Amino acid sequence: MNALVFDGQLRLVRDYPLPRVAEGETCVRVLRAGICNTDLEIIKGYMNYRGVLGHEFVGVTDDGTRVVGEINAYCGACPTCLRGDPTHCPHRTTLGILGREGALAEYLTLPTRNLHRVPAAVTDAQAVFTEPLAAACEITERIHIHPTERVCVIGDGKLGLLCAQVLQLTGCDLLVLGHHAHKLAILQKRGIATTTDADAARTQFDVVVDCAGNASGFDLARKLVRPRGILVLKSTFHGGQESSFAPIVIDEISISGSRCGPFAPALRLLEQKLVDVDALIEAEFPMARGIEAFERARQKGALKVQIIM
Amino acid sequence: MNALVFDGQLRLVRDYPLPRVAEGETCVRVLRAGICNTDLEIIKGYMNYRGVLGHEFVGVTDDGTRVVGEINAYCGACPTCLRGDPTHCPHRTTLGILGREGALAEYLTLPTRNLHRVPAAVTDAQAVFTEPLAAACEITERIHIHPTERVCVIGDGKLGLLCAQVLQLTGCDLLVLGHHAHKLAILQKRGIATTTDADAARTQFDVVVDCAGNASGFDLARKLVRPRGILVLKSTFHGGQESSFAPIVIDEISISGSRCGPFAPALRLLEQKLVDVDALIEAEFPMARGIEAFERARQKGALKVQIIM
Repeated sequence: MNALVFDGQLRLVRDYPLPRVAEGETCVRVLRAGICNTDLEIIKGYMNYRGVLGHEFVGVTDDGTRVVGEINAYCGACPTCLRGDPTHCPHRTTLGILGREGALAEYLTLPTRNLHRVPAAVTDAQAVFTEPLAAACEITERIHIHPTERVCVIGDGKLGLLCAQVLQLTGCDLLVLGHHAHKLAILQKRGIATTTDADAARTQFDVVVDCAGNASGFDLARKLVRPRGILVLKSTFHGGQESSFAPIVIDEISISGSRCGPFAPALRLLEQKLVDVDALIEAEFPMARGIEAFERARQKGALKVQIIM
Repeated sequence: MNALVFDGQLRLVRDYPLPRVAEGETCVRVLRAGICNTDLEIIKGYMNYRGVLGHEFVGVTDDGTRVVGEINAYCGACPTCLRGDPTHCPHRTTLGILGREGALAEYLTLPTRNLHRVPAAVTDAQAVFTEPLAAACEITERIHIHPTERVCVIGDGKLGLLCAQVLQLTGCDLLVLGHHAHKLAILQKRGIATTTDADAARTQFDVVVDCAGNASGFDLARKLVRPRGILVLKSTFHGGQESSFAPIVIDEISISGSRCGPFAPALRLLEQKLVDVDALIEAEFPMARGIEAFERARQKGALKVQIIM
């Protein structure tokens, strides 16, 4: 099959072996898949992953059911799974990120229990956003955002735009800090306050969500969060950074790392049109132009690039 | 009056001016004061503080009442104070740390509302531990330690030994990781499990409290905490450190900065002999030998050094 593979270098492979379907798993024919910043980070060395890239997709099963799939395949039997944290199963594989071939290929396999039927009202292009939208929902799954709180999202990348839209639904007093007028305009249209000037945020925030996607976000977030406020880390990127932790102790800041989220609420938000993902599509490419798709996704300020199989 | 002053260099000053007593404040004649790691960090440049050092003390007021005092003097009128976070008041001064002359002197002043009467059953030497013991109580004030949880304290310094004793009272499954057999022995006597070997901690912990007092603690804490576990930061020290935040996002770790704590529960624990602080005293010095006291406190592995006025 055709597959976009990273083996130290990104390649479009035309005769990649079909995935083997293990017990309890289902083979999914991929219709469409997205390129995530995580894929771009993997190409820089993040996670030391080798294999088919991609973890955002919509596909169909043998019987024609349109599905999306949670990306962490867990054992279901270890203490972590039994505690209710299967996405942290130490034996897990993660689609296109850790020990499991990804979604930027004609076929993929996932445990059948990971699959979710896509409602008819959700288009293929929208369904591909289920995974990153679920990651945005993980913020409100993990912490209680009070409707009376002041919340700041740092970053107007793909994840920032999704997080902002999910946070808006809490009724909170929201400000999004970004670099790109055309991306912030997507939020402004929905009534979300935005700025490109970090100094414009005069008062401090109860909750700051770092979606900057690079090392600069943390120190800015720390400055913007009030004493005893919550700093949510959403960015994963390759490499370390220099920071001082004393201010976190002095101001008694809570930091909450937040990663993959629940698919069911993400699908509900998509079905009920409470979040706009159509405006987040930068471009679509056929699989044959997959390398070009990555080049486009890598451009500064690019929004979501999707690949059609 | 005699005072231990830091003006870029530590000095014993014999004719330091008496503190001015502002409205709402009480003058306290200091009986005894402790040297904290924070004092040692200030001498290295932490907080850029200049003035009388010290914030752990017991003293007497004009009418002979024996008192200890919360170290943050707050305005009581700003949004932060009205929200119930007076220790984070942006207008605050902090005894011997920020804009307020400290306790290593014959007299100090604090807002009257900051003072707590010391129960008769608590000795002077014990009462000086109220402030650091309150900082240990701040852990359980800020986060819910479940009795069924596995908890690790990193560090067998003064604060680590106090935190461990407070955490033991929750009934949790506690392990303290330290470097000094003679200090760990204080905890062992109280039935607390200890180790000097980080690798001995085979399984991960639900909660890890970093009292290492230096940059090494954070990365070790991160390794020891389970996915979705809580990492409590107690150490403040001068300088920054290099860290990667991606593992915090991937494992969805919560980090909780924790600083000054509530005096009332600390005094109850002292009065009820639920915590042993006597064993934590390294040495006592008269004020005239204050410089020597600091030299002793600075020695690797030293416990609490107190100065008698």
